[in-house]
Amino acid sequence: MTTTQASRLEQEVLQRMRDWKTSFAAKDVDAMMSFYADGDAFSAFDLMPPIEFRGGDMWRAGWVAFFAAFQGPLSLEFSGMEVHASDELAVARVFVRLVGVLNGQDTDMWVRTTNCFRRIDGRWLMFHDHVSVPLDFATGRSLTHLTPEKPFGE
Amino acid sequence: MTTTQASRLEQEVLQRMRDWKTSFAAKDVDAMMSFYADGDAFSAFDLMPPIEFRGGDMWRAGWVAFFAAFQGPLSLEFSGMEVHASDELAVARVFVRLVGVLNGQDTDMWVRTTNCFRRIDGRWLMFHDHVSVPLDFATGRSLTHLTPEKPFGE
Repeated sequence: MTTTQASRLEQEVLQRMRDWKTSFAAKDVDAMMSFYADGDAFSAFDLMPPIEFRGGDMWRAGWVAFFAAFQGPLSLEFSGMEVHASDELAVARVFVRLVGVLNGQDTDMWVRTTNCFRRIDGRWLMFHDHVSVPLDFATGRSLTHLTPEKPFGE
Repeated sequence: MTTTQASRLEQEVLQRMRDWKTSFAAKDVDAMMSFYADGDAFSAFDLMPPIEFRGGDMWRAGWVAFFAAFQGPLSLEFSGMEVHASDELAVARVFVRLVGVLNGQDTDMWVRTTNCFRRIDGRWLMFHDHVSVPLDFATGRSLTHLTPEKPFGE
């Protein structure tokens, strides 16, 4: 694969990530689901339990619950995006800032996401997502206050 | 790419994951580093802070610290392995059980890992790893007791 081809594929995946962000911020469940491979071909290791989401129905229910927990507008920001693409598979990794009111609490947190794509019938679809924050073993707490600028915390 | 070709590539990546597990359980830092792309080509979203590890030197220091924190033997188990491979890129996702004594505490936890590979000079090297457990938003705690069999906890 030439550098030009790789660059074109990376741009395609980057555009998919931008469109995904737009659907995410709009809390549009149907639009979100258009980015994922059908049925059990999709799995996610998400920020919240269970330990694994498997298949479109479970993932859709997760998004419905997540969007319901965020009252009012949801603001998103990307940082540190990197895309790796080949003809058939691609990986995007990025920090995503979530700003809004979550379960009544003002929330402003950066999460790490790894989105894995396969090109299916000419369209890039995510077959696996992984979203997380690190943990502090000493306290058992999730480190929700880290940022790309303050990666170790205070 | 034919099914046979895809299957062969998947078997190659699966073998790399098995070898990685062997090096991990042996707490062999040099052997571990042989699985990662050189220098800043590698990034990780790890179980522990910082929010991002970048480059081989930082990642090596992370493994040295991690292995030092586990006194005595470290036992590993894989579950739910899935490999997706193409000519140039591959993704393995798996649950990894870590059993040992961590900072003086008996530890038995399942983590989720997504390992992203690129074939470089004929060898599959990880260019991005993501390791995590989910968080419980209500308490801010990391859910270190979930298992592939009890994915929601008690």
